[in-house]
Amino acid sequence: MDTEEFRLYGKQMVDFMADYMHNIRNHRVLPQISPGYVRDLVPEQAPEEGEPWEEVFKDIQRVVLPGVVHWNSPRFHSYFPAGNSFPAICAEMLSGVFCNIGFSWSASPASTDLEMVMLDWLGKMVQLPQEFLFSSNGPGGGVVQSSASESTLMALLSAREKAISYVQSIKKDLSQGIILEKMVYYSSIEAHCSVEKAGLLSGLTCRLLPTDAAFSLQGDILQAAIDEDRTQGKIPFFVVGTLGTTNSCAFDNIEKLGEVCKKENLWFHIDAAYAGAAFICPEFRYLLNGVEHWGIPCGRKFRSLKMWFVFRLFGVRGLQTYIRKHVRLAHEFENLARNDNRFEVLFPVVLGVVCFRLKGSEVQNEEMLRVINKRGKIALKSSRMRSHNLYFIRFVVCGKDTESEDIVFSWREISLAANNVLNPKVVGDKSETF
Amino acid sequence: MDTEEFRLYGKQMVDFMADYMHNIRNHRVLPQISPGYVRDLVPEQAPEEGEPWEEVFKDIQRVVLPGVVHWNSPRFHSYFPAGNSFPAICAEMLSGVFCNIGFSWSASPASTDLEMVMLDWLGKMVQLPQEFLFSSNGPGGGVVQSSASESTLMALLSAREKAISYVQSIKKDLSQGIILEKMVYYSSIEAHCSVEKAGLLSGLTCRLLPTDAAFSLQGDILQAAIDEDRTQGKIPFFVVGTLGTTNSCAFDNIEKLGEVCKKENLWFHIDAAYAGAAFICPEFRYLLNGVEHWGIPCGRKFRSLKMWFVFRLFGVRGLQTYIRKHVRLAHEFENLARNDNRFEVLFPVVLGVVCFRLKGSEVQNEEMLRVINKRGKIALKSSRMRSHNLYFIRFVVCGKDTESEDIVFSWREISLAANNVLNPKVVGDKSETF
Repeated sequence: MDTEEFRLYGKQMVDFMADYMHNIRNHRVLPQISPGYVRDLVPEQAPEEGEPWEEVFKDIQRVVLPGVVHWNSPRFHSYFPAGNSFPAICAEMLSGVFCNIGFSWSASPASTDLEMVMLDWLGKMVQLPQEFLFSSNGPGGGVVQSSASESTLMALLSAREKAISYVQSIKKDLSQGIILEKMVYYSSIEAHCSVEKAGLLSGLTCRLLPTDAAFSLQGDILQAAIDEDRTQGKIPFFVVGTLGTTNSCAFDNIEKLGEVCKKENLWFHIDAAYAGAAFICPEFRYLLNGVEHWGIPCGRKFRSLKMWFVFRLFGVRGLQTYIRKHVRLAHEFENLARNDNRFEVLFPVVLGVVCFRLKGSEVQNEEMLRVINKRGKIALKSSRMRSHNLYFIRFVVCGKDTESEDIVFSWREISLAANNVLNPKVVGDKSETF
Repeated sequence: MDTEEFRLYGKQMVDFMADYMHNIRNHRVLPQISPGYVRDLVPEQAPEEGEPWEEVFKDIQRVVLPGVVHWNSPRFHSYFPAGNSFPAICAEMLSGVFCNIGFSWSASPASTDLEMVMLDWLGKMVQLPQEFLFSSNGPGGGVVQSSASESTLMALLSAREKAISYVQSIKKDLSQGIILEKMVYYSSIEAHCSVEKAGLLSGLTCRLLPTDAAFSLQGDILQAAIDEDRTQGKIPFFVVGTLGTTNSCAFDNIEKLGEVCKKENLWFHIDAAYAGAAFICPEFRYLLNGVEHWGIPCGRKFRSLKMWFVFRLFGVRGLQTYIRKHVRLAHEFENLARNDNRFEVLFPVVLGVVCFRLKGSEVQNEEMLRVINKRGKIALKSSRMRSHNLYFIRFVVCGKDTESEDIVFSWREISLAANNVLNPKVVGDKSETF
């Protein structure tokens, strides 16, 4: 593919992308294929000679689309929002052609430099204290990691090295292996599984602590655990607080946890993978209260172009509008669910996640979810609180183009599935089934 | 940015990308800016209102380009090839619009399924034994990691867990901390620094072994180290062999190392970050001999579209041609260096890396490199063999469009810089300086 061919095919791809997004409501959200489906559709080995573009392009329709989960669909309410947008796509195209590999400043000055400024922009948007910013000229400054899991792991590893150095400086007879065995870190039992996984990867012990009735980890619970562990000769060194848990979008008590960490000299890492974006809206910023006077790990990757395009083309107001629309739509769904007495909404709806269930057995809820996802017109995911063993369904507003009509559409899917499961033969409006 | 705007701006971006690649020889390869340059060119915070596309697009020229290292330039001979291509860019555009997050099969069946098939294609292209392939229906199968560093870390962590389980099954009194302290893994002293770093991240001890005169790690050296460590009660569990070291593109003796690993029951990981691609050419495949009967770690990411587009649009023959051209150009450079008696070429040129130096002091070589990179018309990087403390310069053929004329151009830059450094006043053709 030479430059002029790319000019042609690249634009053909842009048209495909635009058409795809324009017509996204025409797709089933969930595909109807079985594992291994691609193997039946493509040759067993790479072609010896290059194929024409047209053949490859055609196969997007034939091979790829049948297996795509449409994360961009306004009716995708599963997992979490992918946060895609046209400005982000344009930035990634540009980043793709530069293909800069930013493992050091000199290998890609533009990406590192822009990243530093963009992280400061972001820090200011969520009103982080000044000392968290590069512009404070202190140790502050942020870095983009590939994922929340990686962020937690990096913070844990950094805290581990710091803690080992500290312990070895005061107890010179302890070997590193013994220290590692004694080290313990904490998070809520409702934290994302990546918090525990980071411990498995790095050989460290994670202690999951119980939450209060709102699934929020409180300072006194943390303090008691630390006291108990210190009595037993263990070495507490790290705490993960979560803002917006994956299950139910619950918020740990960051202010109190922070006080304990400060007093006990523990590294405090905050995982705000889902809720973080909402802190650019002043009305949600209070959820972040307590973020003061702690370090952030170092390192660098190339994502700054994407942030730059998104921040500028939306503007802070545009991003706030985006977040607020998602929250408003979540409340619309919440109202629909609350007004149907067959359902219950389980937790306060703060951002874009509504946790609900049929007032019925777990089996009935599972069956309802199975019916919905098998139809595949909308996508939903179940969840379970680890502390209460309570099965429920998460409805997440994900799509960038989700509108009230999609919420109504999705609710109708759920309502009909409930008819199917609860009683296919009742009279009236709710008697309709699939 | 709505769909129709994206149709317009996306195509504008495609034109920018095509123009950039078409005119890439007009750019200095290395930028002339200082750390922090972006901060002076952009506002201190994100705009409150969204900006028009035109403003953002203009700033690519004003803000980004001045800080870009042109990794795509035919005269970029630093680090390693980024391996960019138009088919790869088209695939990333498509991947960008789907925005599928493939943490499980059901979250993105197309990407997982296609990745399994693409890894088999790749395995067949480099003639891996059948049992390494998914299609063998055994434990075989590959996975794309984000980087070679991550691959090594994942393999190390997997081997660690396996080894701990094994040791605990036969010595029930040993705690995990004690076992971890005793565990040791091996690589050549010339291996990439990520091999040692993986040990730092995972809390494991790495022992770097000496190489022979060709910077190749041999089986008897490994065997002796294992014997010595076992005598001292240590637990050998993992070996990293390198095919194409970063420094000098040296090749460890995989066959002999493999025999030792098999005999000693150690996990054998092969890092072929640079040289791996060349194994699709039959004439270089012998370098991989010895890859037989060992495991590969599991996990999944989404890169398969890119592989699919690249494999199909180039074809195996196209990719072979690409690799062979790079190797041919490296030999062209080697000949130019060998025919100038002011220079020496240090190691056999096997693939696309030529290690050379001025016959002179380290200071003179450093000065020559400084002059070249300050002019920025080509990009070169120095290196140093850890075992010999020998300073030299790496010339790597990187650009997808590098031609003989670029090799001649680059050689002239180097030759003139040598004039500058060695003796600016000699007569004849070589007297020319910058």
